Amino acid sequence: MILRSPIKHCRNCGTAVVYRVPDDGDTHQRAVCPACDTIHYENPLNVVGTVPYFGDKVLLCKRNIEPRWGKWTLPAGFMELGETTAEGAMRETHEEAGAQIELEGLFTVLSVPRVGQVHLFYRARLLSDRFDPGFETLEARLFEEHEIPWDEIAFRTVKETLEHFFADRARGQFGVHNLDVL
Amino acid sequence: MILRSPIKHCRNCGTAVVYRVPDDGDTHQRAVCPACDTIHYENPLNVVGTVPYFGDKVLLCKRNIEPRWGKWTLPAGFMELGETTAEGAMRETHEEAGAQIELEGLFTVLSVPRVGQVHLFYRARLLSDRFDPGFETLEARLFEEHEIPWDEIAFRTVKETLEHFFADRARGQFGVHNLDVL
Repeated sequence: MILRSPIKHCRNCGTAVVYRVPDDGDTHQRAVCPACDTIHYENPLNVVGTVPYFGDKVLLCKRNIEPRWGKWTLPAGFMELGETTAEGAMRETHEEAGAQIELEGLFTVLSVPRVGQVHLFYRARLLSDRFDPGFETLEARLFEEHEIPWDEIAFRTVKETLEHFFADRARGQFGVHNLDVL
Repeated sequence: MILRSPIKHCRNCGTAVVYRVPDDGDTHQRAVCPACDTIHYENPLNVVGTVPYFGDKVLLCKRNIEPRWGKWTLPAGFMELGETTAEGAMRETHEEAGAQIELEGLFTVLSVPRVGQVHLFYRARLLSDRFDPGFETLEARLFEEHEIPWDEIAFRTVKETLEHFFADRARGQFGVHNLDVL
């Protein structure tokens, strides 16, 4: 989880910033440096992950980090510079679950404006049911649909993604779902 | 266009940062403050926009800003904190073209890892063929497919999105396309 503190100082020269609407036609307040004129933008972050499935079962990870320590989630994390959304989703699946996967299609794109995030999940076929979770995960485990701990899911985007996954599987066709979590 | 300078100073206290891998299990180098321990993350940015169509025609905007001044583009810009991808796409269409639209489905999701961006375009039905472009746009104009100035398109993500739009329209069904521009 990236918790961003407010911008107090200029990233370029260290001077204390002021908050104002820049003179370049911008419509939003930004942190502007009164010394070197650098404008500091803050924008939403992408979280990328997968729905790893093995036969009828889906892989969930029990979180060993805050927020939502001890709750269950799909493998996912912040997209890094230099990677594609698909590469980020594969990296996070490897880091958090140590799972071997074959990535399939983009499945959900969920905006979470309250926290300034967009979550993107891909379907992923598990090539093995052996996992090697990293330090961020207490336990990585396969669940049948009726076993999913719905009241212990860490994030609403994960719950929505799982619900759409089982619904699409039941009707025999997977779509791409663009949703807002308000 | 947001051009980000390298982080030289801490946003929290103004001290000069050092670049290193944090001790919290991270695998990437970050700008870390030696005084207050703030870790500064840099992540990809989302660009959100639309493919506005009116009957057989598609709306393009001639850019009045750098980069690619004078080239044609679809209305799009950086997603802001506090909005959904769909809200951002509508806002940009209003700001850059002054176009009245009804937003339809998500259409393309394109990773551009070279510049650390993800571009998301929605299909949008134009409610009128009268436009009121903002200062970022020299001209907003409708094009039939055979009129598209393919050699004068500002960005590869726009070209790919237009190509998929006309291809999907020809086969009578619009999908959601997840692509990488490498």
